[in-house]
Amino acid sequence: MDPKKQVRALLFDVFGSVVDWRNSIARDLKAWGDRDGLHADWEALARAWRSHYQPKMQEVRSGKRPFTLLDTLHLEALEVLLPEFNLHGISSEQKDHINRVWHRLDPWPDSVSGLVRLKSRYTIAPLSNGNVALLNNMAKYAGIAWDLNLSTQWFGAYKPQPQTYLGAAEVLGLEPHEVMMCAAHNDDLAAARACGLRTAFWPRPTEYGQDQTKDFQAEQDWDIVATDIRDLADQLLGKV
Amino acid sequence: MDPKKQVRALLFDVFGSVVDWRNSIARDLKAWGDRDGLHADWEALARAWRSHYQPKMQEVRSGKRPFTLLDTLHLEALEVLLPEFNLHGISSEQKDHINRVWHRLDPWPDSVSGLVRLKSRYTIAPLSNGNVALLNNMAKYAGIAWDLNLSTQWFGAYKPQPQTYLGAAEVLGLEPHEVMMCAAHNDDLAAARACGLRTAFWPRPTEYGQDQTKDFQAEQDWDIVATDIRDLADQLLGKV
Repeated sequence: MDPKKQVRALLFDVFGSVVDWRNSIARDLKAWGDRDGLHADWEALARAWRSHYQPKMQEVRSGKRPFTLLDTLHLEALEVLLPEFNLHGISSEQKDHINRVWHRLDPWPDSVSGLVRLKSRYTIAPLSNGNVALLNNMAKYAGIAWDLNLSTQWFGAYKPQPQTYLGAAEVLGLEPHEVMMCAAHNDDLAAARACGLRTAFWPRPTEYGQDQTKDFQAEQDWDIVATDIRDLADQLLGKV
Repeated sequence: MDPKKQVRALLFDVFGSVVDWRNSIARDLKAWGDRDGLHADWEALARAWRSHYQPKMQEVRSGKRPFTLLDTLHLEALEVLLPEFNLHGISSEQKDHINRVWHRLDPWPDSVSGLVRLKSRYTIAPLSNGNVALLNNMAKYAGIAWDLNLSTQWFGAYKPQPQTYLGAAEVLGLEPHEVMMCAAHNDDLAAARACGLRTAFWPRPTEYGQDQTKDFQAEQDWDIVATDIRDLADQLLGKV
């Protein structure tokens, strides 16, 4: 039997795979900064901010510090970046507004419609390193109709730690092979496959803009290779 | 200011408040039993089963046993009930089918439409002692569009333990007074109010059938007293 037929739940990586963090942050903060008289190269700030993402989470994964919400890790990185981008004298309200831009990210054009279709047959959930509140606020903001919120916060760990993939399958009452990890990142899928999950890939070649060095294409024989989430729905459900 | 205006998230009790467990179980198992040649007073079994609910959870709340999923507690109670209802020689597949009837409960007539309306303005989530998989399967079965799944399983506790109400507010990044517990059970609301949450009540006077002894009306001055979930939406959003 086609192993894809056993899949009951689709878990989605979010940052970059479902939402376009780089352009969303640049658009949101430019419009807000122009009103507040704060000027910066917001697109470059978004890329610089994201470059702190893996190192900050690694402090948690390595055991160097206890589990810490992504909102907090984002704020710590932002404190470092503000002077680098000549943003001085920012109030704590302004800092909070900037930090919460990660709660206000727009989906890629195919994401919402693809997910709506997939939801008719599968349980769909984010399996993201974003904290529960971040992912919930983003879903309300972006109109993404997740069935449930599987932030890795629930597991006190960060992807690609195995307890995130295995914990998600377990709380759903499913075996790993009944769950498919869906992402635009080969390393996320490799970690999920090592835990026994099925895998689906599509590229987001503009995710990192000029910083993008990888994930232009599938690097393993993932169970599904799609062009985007709408195509993933076509492949799993048939074309509309 | 009206304290209700600060509310950002509505947490719903599920069994009895959103879904009609008694009649759903009776309908589902009668139709299935008639096909399989298994006959019993399924409505009476549903009521007897529910009478085990609080005592079984109390074993966990008291610390007598570690946190145990509601699916497991349901199965233990079912094992006691089968001989009482003259159901002998049941296969393990049949037993599993019966036990998972709690994943296949129908909403009350006003629930789905009321929740759809409320979702347009509030985060809506179950705060239920049902485990994550149970609540997810039920939502898919019943067409309930929760934003996220706040099973008390995530908190390793059972309502009315305070860590369930406070844990839900915390993961949402909200203060207790920004969260409203919504239920057809006065004791659930009393526990939520003691934690600082807002409260909304509506009665489900036929929930327990002939066993119903309470919750025919509001027993405190809850922040909202409604006739059902559709009326709750009218009171919070205005009439359609």
